[in-house]
Amino acid sequence: VSPSASDEPARLLDAARAGERRALARLLSVLERGGAEARAVAAACTGAPAPYVVGITGAPGAGKSTLTDRLIGHARGGWPAEGPEGAQAIDQLAVLAVDPSSPLSGGAILGDRVRMASHATDPSVYIRSLAARGHLGGLSLAVPDALRLLGAVGMPLVLVETVGVGQMEVEVASAADTTVVVLTPGWGDAMQAAKAGLLEVADLFVLNKADRLGVAEARRDLEAMVALSAPGSWHPPVLEAVALEDRGVDQLFEAVGRHRRHLVESGELAVRRRSRLAAQLRRILLAAVTQQVDAQVAGERFEHLVDAVLAGSLDPYGAVDQLLS
Amino acid sequence: VSPSASDEPARLLDAARAGERRALARLLSVLERGGAEARAVAAACTGAPAPYVVGITGAPGAGKSTLTDRLIGHARGGWPAEGPEGAQAIDQLAVLAVDPSSPLSGGAILGDRVRMASHATDPSVYIRSLAARGHLGGLSLAVPDALRLLGAVGMPLVLVETVGVGQMEVEVASAADTTVVVLTPGWGDAMQAAKAGLLEVADLFVLNKADRLGVAEARRDLEAMVALSAPGSWHPPVLEAVALEDRGVDQLFEAVGRHRRHLVESGELAVRRRSRLAAQLRRILLAAVTQQVDAQVAGERFEHLVDAVLAGSLDPYGAVDQLLS
Repeated sequence: VSPSASDEPARLLDAARAGERRALARLLSVLERGGAEARAVAAACTGAPAPYVVGITGAPGAGKSTLTDRLIGHARGGWPAEGPEGAQAIDQLAVLAVDPSSPLSGGAILGDRVRMASHATDPSVYIRSLAARGHLGGLSLAVPDALRLLGAVGMPLVLVETVGVGQMEVEVASAADTTVVVLTPGWGDAMQAAKAGLLEVADLFVLNKADRLGVAEARRDLEAMVALSAPGSWHPPVLEAVALEDRGVDQLFEAVGRHRRHLVESGELAVRRRSRLAAQLRRILLAAVTQQVDAQVAGERFEHLVDAVLAGSLDPYGAVDQLLS
Repeated sequence: VSPSASDEPARLLDAARAGERRALARLLSVLERGGAEARAVAAACTGAPAPYVVGITGAPGAGKSTLTDRLIGHARGGWPAEGPEGAQAIDQLAVLAVDPSSPLSGGAILGDRVRMASHATDPSVYIRSLAARGHLGGLSLAVPDALRLLGAVGMPLVLVETVGVGQMEVEVASAADTTVVVLTPGWGDAMQAAKAGLLEVADLFVLNKADRLGVAEARRDLEAMVALSAPGSWHPPVLEAVALEDRGVDQLFEAVGRHRRHLVESGELAVRRRSRLAAQLRRILLAAVTQQVDAQVAGERFEHLVDAVLAGSLDPYGAVDQLLS
């Protein structure tokens, strides 16, 4: 007998847990498409442990992909000894490259994956781009789904790299436990980050390409702007790096470890994850009711009500009341 | 006996129809706030004739307010003789200045109102800024409500000027019968307009400050980009003006009249207004169900479901299914 459709996600999940990368890739493709199949995958991941998620965002050209590539190497050495549970191995990890501006993830991401090629032969590193190919609710739903799946297959750490600095990029990157904002010493970069709302979501700043002119000015601008933001129990540090030469990336991973320890010890990790989950449930609810609204809008009754308002026998709100009743 | 609350909108509407500007201002304030009172005003406007709406948008500093001010003067002369009903008087008109970026409309708009002061003493011209002070659904609902009200008090023409070039500005401006996009000869202005999605919504382009260098280049860039857009039955013309000296504004109003005639004669005016109304009803529906979702999210049951997902006994979609059932 052939396995039923509902057995398929569980079977693929078992294979992915056993290390079959093609099974994991198929499951992620299902999540990208959304729909009933994606829900079945999400259900199969119920109760799985959450991975630690590091979001990496910043202006295009800041060198996020190179930095992510180098970060993989340092992360493979495990969490630093001063971590919440002492030194801790990271036996495998995943990188999700997310491009919200492209529903079909074009050349840029493919190029990024090639740039991360130094880990292409490492079986404990899984690199994959993610797009919202029809997932209702888009990447704001597909990314949390993918993170749950990666936790379910046993990944203790996921790096989420976003391309671009739009609202969606900020939303995706800030749905991480630690959000790293990558900037370059270029004039106005810090200001651009502020405009994009990156200052509010950053847990760590990295001035990449720090061998260029203007690092001191950029650091000064950035620290002044950070000081203006509301003070919290965590003060986002400004680090320097030259990712291309792997300089400063070990300190970056140490800083990620320090932030993780801060979140665990302060209890903020649990608070953040709870509010992120609540926001995700709200988005799923909104996507569901939006689908219901669009089904109504496509119906004949809706057309009749539009006609009634045009004919002057109803006002718009009265028409909607009739649809809702 | 004092009049009941439900009589109030009808009473104010009668007063506004009789020319009482303070009654009209109060009604518009009610619409800005939204809620049950705004619905009562909308209901009182049922069956009112729609005004002809001209949207004016474009980059900050392009001179939109001055152009709008001059346009008022030319519009007071009536629709041109080659219009759909021949020469036609415009006995009164309204200007709505809309700033979506500011929920409370700050200094910029106030400044604009002062700049339109050449018509401040003309009782047949009503100038007013509009903000969404709490209206659920924001300006995308408050503006159509205001336009219906202005039609109901007998305005045959409304100019809607937006400040800024964000997505909301484009949405508000393109909810007009004729959308005028104002640019200056400055380098890159046309490209910026393209990025903001203004090319798709423009019925007319105006190169304002056309006494500056670079008009020919700007016109060439713009016409090339317009030519690349999908061809329709109306080809958006590129006009030149120096609003400050009232040069070219008479031709602009003539072009608005030609576009109006085109819309009426082709039947497109009715098609556009129907699809705009349908979009408005959809937005009202979405605002209503979003309110329902947020009521659920604020409830105890929602918190319990978040806990259940965190405890690993439910997946997010399963939790939402329980909320929806």
